[in-house]
Amino acid sequence: MSLDESVVSGSKAAARLRAAAIEAFAANGFGATTTREIAARLEMSAAAMYPHYKSKEELLFAIAYEGHQLTLEWLQAADPVGEAPAARLRAVVGEFAKNQATHHSRARVVEYELAALTDEHFRAIAGLRRDVVHLVRRIVQTGADDGSFAVPDVEGVTLAIVSLCVDVCRWFPGGTYTEPDTVAKLYPELAIRLAGAHS
Amino acid sequence: MSLDESVVSGSKAAARLRAAAIEAFAANGFGATTTREIAARLEMSAAAMYPHYKSKEELLFAIAYEGHQLTLEWLQAADPVGEAPAARLRAVVGEFAKNQATHHSRARVVEYELAALTDEHFRAIAGLRRDVVHLVRRIVQTGADDGSFAVPDVEGVTLAIVSLCVDVCRWFPGGTYTEPDTVAKLYPELAIRLAGAHS
Repeated sequence: MSLDESVVSGSKAAARLRAAAIEAFAANGFGATTTREIAARLEMSAAAMYPHYKSKEELLFAIAYEGHQLTLEWLQAADPVGEAPAARLRAVVGEFAKNQATHHSRARVVEYELAALTDEHFRAIAGLRRDVVHLVRRIVQTGADDGSFAVPDVEGVTLAIVSLCVDVCRWFPGGTYTEPDTVAKLYPELAIRLAGAHS
Repeated sequence: MSLDESVVSGSKAAARLRAAAIEAFAANGFGATTTREIAARLEMSAAAMYPHYKSKEELLFAIAYEGHQLTLEWLQAADPVGEAPAARLRAVVGEFAKNQATHHSRARVVEYELAALTDEHFRAIAGLRRDVVHLVRRIVQTGADDGSFAVPDVEGVTLAIVSLCVDVCRWFPGGTYTEPDTVAKLYPELAIRLAGAHS
């Protein structure tokens, strides 16, 4: 059984526990939440939770792993690999920003509570984060190489595009940007500007 | 005494307590940190801390208030008001990004733990956040009005520029961007691109 399957798949009860934990962490913060409180949200005893997740840290890891894995899969699925770099960048950034808006509660846990993970679990998440960055970076690099992007620094522009998408979960909803689709419309244009694309 | 003075000024002991709290929150998260642990970092009893800050929430508020107030003051000081919008945007964004990098531990507390504040304290911080956004927005609006920026949506571009700067505290240091000055060099160029400036 892969790490992926062992932490995220499994029963509906495990999925409900992850959802309840995200709600509890969003309401009270990771550090101030107890496993007992998470179980209580489902009218479950802490003992009944134990076969699924043995600690709050295991729950956090499962949530972070699932969140990062889904992000990676969604971006891969959204990337029209055969098309021009500008089209690929638009598609991937639109998907990324939309999902950070739609799932902002989960994304906040996923992005801001990683310091609470064990070293081994942190490394597993860091690997998935690198995969996300590399996906964006390959597109930026392709555009830089074929001259469709004017990029002063591939690493810096990649970092900025990913950073812009990640931070959506912090501020969303904000001002008149209250629908994921509105974010999904603006952000591809912003990424195209950051990449200095001729389009 | 203004709110500002009452929460942030005062003794060196209070400043040392805020610094110790930032370290403790950075290491263990806000929720998992106790006032006793913060005091212990200074070889101080919890009782000795009480005249300065009566709760962890008061400490968090003081840290967040000081952090936001400093950011606002730094950006106001960096803004060359009489110059062209592009020069103003470059100066303000360079300062913002540099400070989010330099003070990333404090900035993380300031940006990501606000949900733990009381409603009254949250409103005070939200006011300072609006002031920061308005400062950037005025520059973007000025550039849009005089034609030096090509902005599809002043609100959206402002949001993105602020978001990009804020998020520096989450990822910094990262990759080859390990010095605040390197960030301060890249980010003005990125903001100029987001604003569609002719420069």
